Amino acid sequence: MTQITSEETRAFKAALEAQGFLLPSGVRGVNGFGPAFEDILQRFNALVSRVAADDKAEELTFPPVVPRALIEKMGYLGNFPHLIGSVHSFFGSDAKAREMADQASNGERWEAALDITDVMMTPAACYPVYPLFSGKLSPNGRLVTTLNWIFRHEPSDEPTRFQSFRMREFIRVGPSDVVVAWRDQWLERARTLLLDLGLPVESDVANDPFFGRVGKMLAANQRDQKLKFELKVPVISSTDPTAICSFNWHQEHFSSKFGIQDADDRLAHTACLGFGLERVTLALLKTHGLDTTLWPAATRALLWP
Amino acid sequence: MTQITSEETRAFKAALEAQGFLLPSGVRGVNGFGPAFEDILQRFNALVSRVAADDKAEELTFPPVVPRALIEKMGYLGNFPHLIGSVHSFFGSDAKAREMADQASNGERWEAALDITDVMMTPAACYPVYPLFSGKLSPNGRLVTTLNWIFRHEPSDEPTRFQSFRMREFIRVGPSDVVVAWRDQWLERARTLLLDLGLPVESDVANDPFFGRVGKMLAANQRDQKLKFELKVPVISSTDPTAICSFNWHQEHFSSKFGIQDADDRLAHTACLGFGLERVTLALLKTHGLDTTLWPAATRALLWP
Repeated sequence: MTQITSEETRAFKAALEAQGFLLPSGVRGVNGFGPAFEDILQRFNALVSRVAADDKAEELTFPPVVPRALIEKMGYLGNFPHLIGSVHSFFGSDAKAREMADQASNGERWEAALDITDVMMTPAACYPVYPLFSGKLSPNGRLVTTLNWIFRHEPSDEPTRFQSFRMREFIRVGPSDVVVAWRDQWLERARTLLLDLGLPVESDVANDPFFGRVGKMLAANQRDQKLKFELKVPVISSTDPTAICSFNWHQEHFSSKFGIQDADDRLAHTACLGFGLERVTLALLKTHGLDTTLWPAATRALLWP
Repeated sequence: MTQITSEETRAFKAALEAQGFLLPSGVRGVNGFGPAFEDILQRFNALVSRVAADDKAEELTFPPVVPRALIEKMGYLGNFPHLIGSVHSFFGSDAKAREMADQASNGERWEAALDITDVMMTPAACYPVYPLFSGKLSPNGRLVTTLNWIFRHEPSDEPTRFQSFRMREFIRVGPSDVVVAWRDQWLERARTLLLDLGLPVESDVANDPFFGRVGKMLAANQRDQKLKFELKVPVISSTDPTAICSFNWHQEHFSSKFGIQDADDRLAHTACLGFGLERVTLALLKTHGLDTTLWPAATRALLWP
């Protein structure tokens, strides 16, 4: 879906831009954010931190790029080739650089002189975390939280589909029963949190956007096994609500790749949950309006404590 | 300089990694950050905000990618081709995707199937700001602040040279006398701030790392005209201190590209100053030691107010 189909969404996006919530860059799905938008986003992120405070998650921070070798190891190229961002640079001579700059000045294509680097765009906030879990865990495993910039190459005019956006994630690793109990606790906790903010949220079994024909089977399998859940709120469509929070239970998928064992030497399980911070912000603005002083008292009490 | 030459620096980096300040990714100059490192970084950023509060800068937020067209327009390809990060993705068929994934699994090069996207890595925190200034300014111009992830392709083992790092910047646009007065005020303010933190800072005329033979002339010209200043602190070398804050006065360079006029219809001037947040954090850790509870009382009072 790359074009806006509803008049209401077109008006919503136009108002967000006119009032400085979103700063269009000229590229579809790449936006800057004005102070009013960013304030809501940061306040929601702080609320998540307060709700999760007792869990004492380790807070780790990562850049928006990851090693190319990590993407290859994760199997991302097979599953989501259409979403990747591969970072290329220039390794050539003085003469070659001048030729490239001249081509660019003349409006010609100039990227032939580039070659790959050792990094790619971070495709999911949790990806840089799994390698850190390698080895034998303590009995209760580990819990990490991180806020990362994500890149997904899906240019769109929809205000809920950015190419570059932020996810606040929690990543849990440990014995399968511990991981599943944690996932179930958060499914309820996240739903309650979003309902308390006045968002008309519904929970749904979901699947990742796997690529191609094999991908269709992977997606069906993921749904059958209930490995992915999403919490959704209508933002650009009343019939096709937007996922603003998602849960993935990877079972032993990542643990097998990175050699992560629980205290009993079995392969550990991993799961993650992430809030799409721009999407939550947009859901709040769509649901309660662009003037935050008029938001419901209960919503304001949570975000402006 | 891509290899660590001093034993002291090697020990400093090893301690930062062993104590979880830096989380190596396996790629040179790409690191995650543990909670103790991130806490210092965020506290310094908050201190900068407090020092600058009366200026009432507009706080804007941008993703770590910018439009390819912006990089082309800025002349970055000619001046810094060796530092660019161009984002490429996959636009091909199901069969082509399987071929690519198979190549990756076999350890072969697989990027031939990729093509350029409309975005590149953000090379400087201020770049996405200038297009927003287009048109006629009010008499006092504008002041923007932003915290961005920057990418520069310069793989290095030095702990002060990351490929992906954060800059906290202020960007000033207006008549030349207003911009120069602002720059001079901040040169003193930033120097005082860093001295107050107990950092042995020195100010120096500097130049950007322009590429190639023409670049050598541009760099010399920039120094002659005193268009760039840096504040430096010894981190990995006592004789070659590390720049942790820099000032660039672009005169009419960006205003001419983006049609930015002052209130009298002359081309406006622009200037920016940026703190390298990871570098400031490293300078504090190198100067005062890895145990923040033992830092000087004056430093702690500023960061833990």
